[in-house]
Amino acid sequence: MSIAWTSRYALRTRDIKSSAIRELLKITQQPEIISFGGGLPADDVFPLERVEEACRKVLKENAALALQYGETEGYKPLREMIARHISRYGIKAQAENVLITTGSQQALDLIGKLLINPGDRVLVEAPTYLGALQAFSVYGADYVSVPCDENGLRTDLLEERLRLGPKFMYVLPNFQNPGGTTLSEDRRYTLVSLAKEYGIPIVEDDPYGQLRYEGEHLAPLVVLDRESAPLDQNFTLGNVIYLSTFSKTLAPGLRLGWTVAPAEVIAKLAQLKQGADLHTSTFTQVVAYEVARGNFLDEHVRRIRKVYRERRDVMLEALAQNFPPEVQWTHPQGGLFLWVTLPEGVDANELFHEALKQNVAFVPGDSFFAPNENSQEGRRHLRLNFSHAQPEKIREGIRRLAAAIKTHFHQVRVTRNG
Amino acid sequence: MSIAWTSRYALRTRDIKSSAIRELLKITQQPEIISFGGGLPADDVFPLERVEEACRKVLKENAALALQYGETEGYKPLREMIARHISRYGIKAQAENVLITTGSQQALDLIGKLLINPGDRVLVEAPTYLGALQAFSVYGADYVSVPCDENGLRTDLLEERLRLGPKFMYVLPNFQNPGGTTLSEDRRYTLVSLAKEYGIPIVEDDPYGQLRYEGEHLAPLVVLDRESAPLDQNFTLGNVIYLSTFSKTLAPGLRLGWTVAPAEVIAKLAQLKQGADLHTSTFTQVVAYEVARGNFLDEHVRRIRKVYRERRDVMLEALAQNFPPEVQWTHPQGGLFLWVTLPEGVDANELFHEALKQNVAFVPGDSFFAPNENSQEGRRHLRLNFSHAQPEKIREGIRRLAAAIKTHFHQVRVTRNG
Repeated sequence: MSIAWTSRYALRTRDIKSSAIRELLKITQQPEIISFGGGLPADDVFPLERVEEACRKVLKENAALALQYGETEGYKPLREMIARHISRYGIKAQAENVLITTGSQQALDLIGKLLINPGDRVLVEAPTYLGALQAFSVYGADYVSVPCDENGLRTDLLEERLRLGPKFMYVLPNFQNPGGTTLSEDRRYTLVSLAKEYGIPIVEDDPYGQLRYEGEHLAPLVVLDRESAPLDQNFTLGNVIYLSTFSKTLAPGLRLGWTVAPAEVIAKLAQLKQGADLHTSTFTQVVAYEVARGNFLDEHVRRIRKVYRERRDVMLEALAQNFPPEVQWTHPQGGLFLWVTLPEGVDANELFHEALKQNVAFVPGDSFFAPNENSQEGRRHLRLNFSHAQPEKIREGIRRLAAAIKTHFHQVRVTRNG
Repeated sequence: MSIAWTSRYALRTRDIKSSAIRELLKITQQPEIISFGGGLPADDVFPLERVEEACRKVLKENAALALQYGETEGYKPLREMIARHISRYGIKAQAENVLITTGSQQALDLIGKLLINPGDRVLVEAPTYLGALQAFSVYGADYVSVPCDENGLRTDLLEERLRLGPKFMYVLPNFQNPGGTTLSEDRRYTLVSLAKEYGIPIVEDDPYGQLRYEGEHLAPLVVLDRESAPLDQNFTLGNVIYLSTFSKTLAPGLRLGWTVAPAEVIAKLAQLKQGADLHTSTFTQVVAYEVARGNFLDEHVRRIRKVYRERRDVMLEALAQNFPPEVQWTHPQGGLFLWVTLPEGVDANELFHEALKQNVAFVPGDSFFAPNENSQEGRRHLRLNFSHAQPEKIREGIRRLAAAIKTHFHQVRVTRNG
């Protein structure tokens, strides 16, 4: 007898589907397609020479450590470096507050494992990062969504949602994926203060915080949270788990993210990580440490900012020149994405097929909304990535997308009137 | 108000403890201690030059791919290479049957996520790999244990346990961790045939299969399973999920394992992996591909076999020369470990403290038994690793351990008679 595997799958996996983006990316890998679909950093800013130099140095001086099993929490010098690095943003931490993960995605999985009982609610922004929805849903999360506007999560609607008793809030305050919006300073204070009042922790996801192209840096939630509470000697208090990554500042192929949290939370996450993958690659950790050390990371981030700011500006200009007036989009102050809003009655999923005919791709908005919430709202949106394609490709891609939009709008009108 | 985090943890995390080994390893890292505790490959066989060459080549010729986001299933040329590589052991697979994981540990986590509902039973060997118990327990697994003898899992006791309806069986047929024993050929046939009869799948964990120092290669369970079923064109059938890794043949710091399974199972595991860490480091995958290609992996494995066989023999000889006659141990035909049995009434946890006084360490046996099963049995055992320490250290360490055993036996006798 051969086993019917599906009949043996656990309940939690029944509703798991592959992400729409992942399937789209497969379609859009043909070279003739200009894709604004992925969340990919630009290949042309990877610090190749520095990585090669680091590999050589590590294998010469530190090979036994770099190729051997390592500590679950991560390579200690890297954890210390991260603690120093984030201190300039006011985040007070020592190595014991830092866990290295296999990309930030693993942190989302471990947080889901740590906090979510089946049926627990997670408060998310609408729209939000779909990888977080994937990570949390497998543990049986339900969702409470709070809409965003150009100043991020609408804190005026927050309190009534907090009364529904979510287990935690998941928020991307800087240059949100997919919205491109940034949570304003006064809303940050409101959010942190409501979290305290209701005793509901915040998971602050900040992959893009360093990639700001205009405006002033705003304090992360984890800093505001600490400011308003007496800081203990052992860094064990706090209502915020803060996540970031090297994926957008060095290279995503290294799969290096980090979590900053009270020491007891880090210890528990490390226990869960041990069962999940023992530890993140020692080799990529030691190499990343060698790459980032000294002032290199700062210098490199300045370079990336320059390249991405130009690409953002090129995309914004091309949108203004080519898109019909009834289409709107966000003006991101940083990050990798902007968010387009179509007129009511236009479906981004249908537009996607028209766009493919024109050899241009994006991600339709509905993937970014929690299941059973706002999925109609999602259909009016699309996410555009501006970091990966070079400027001339961006201009050409937006021209093609504008053509697809015009064709699609025409079809919609004909259908409606017909 | 500052949040009481523990009150927010999910039920599944309540019983999670850090592994005993992990805590022990922290104690035993002092340089004066000779540790047989970890499961570490020898640092001195890591292929440094080849890894450095591969890094240089990859960063010169394939950097954009190696540093960028990659496919969740893994780097296709690596998956194809693995499929070719395992075909010589009779495992028929194509790339679609191979998933690259962040070490084999991640495969155990994904399999737990895919198959285990809270309260489901998993059939395991007694003793078994404690990392598997960690991975499965977080999903609420209960256990059914089957004892092992010198020929591996006792298949004569299997049928009555299968009647208890385990969700799957988890088996390490080659040079088992921790037992060092190998499942005999006739028991392999019995196991596969009972799996079919009861419709209960097998997870075959084979991290050490290539590290055989004597005797004939025995066909993996996945091969026997396929032999007895008509093979379909699409490699979608089969009752076995097969796991292996580069951790013992190249280097564990790369964190590269792989899973071979029917295509539909791989597709489902990949969906779960996407939420867990998006994908395993592209960089280490492409580097490992460059390192392993050609005949290098085979040549390198031959070298490792030679080094480890010598260390095993040195340890066996030292045990025979130094240990008192009432202590027994296994004679592993391969792998990294041997398993020591103490006389009844002697507790390996107490011996551990005496051993530390003598500056030698091992892992007490009780960690390797499923919770609430045979934990008394476990106390009579200890696991010794023979791959990591160099021969002269092995001799000295076993002398120290023998001294600790004699002191401890004396104390036990005095206590009993006193």
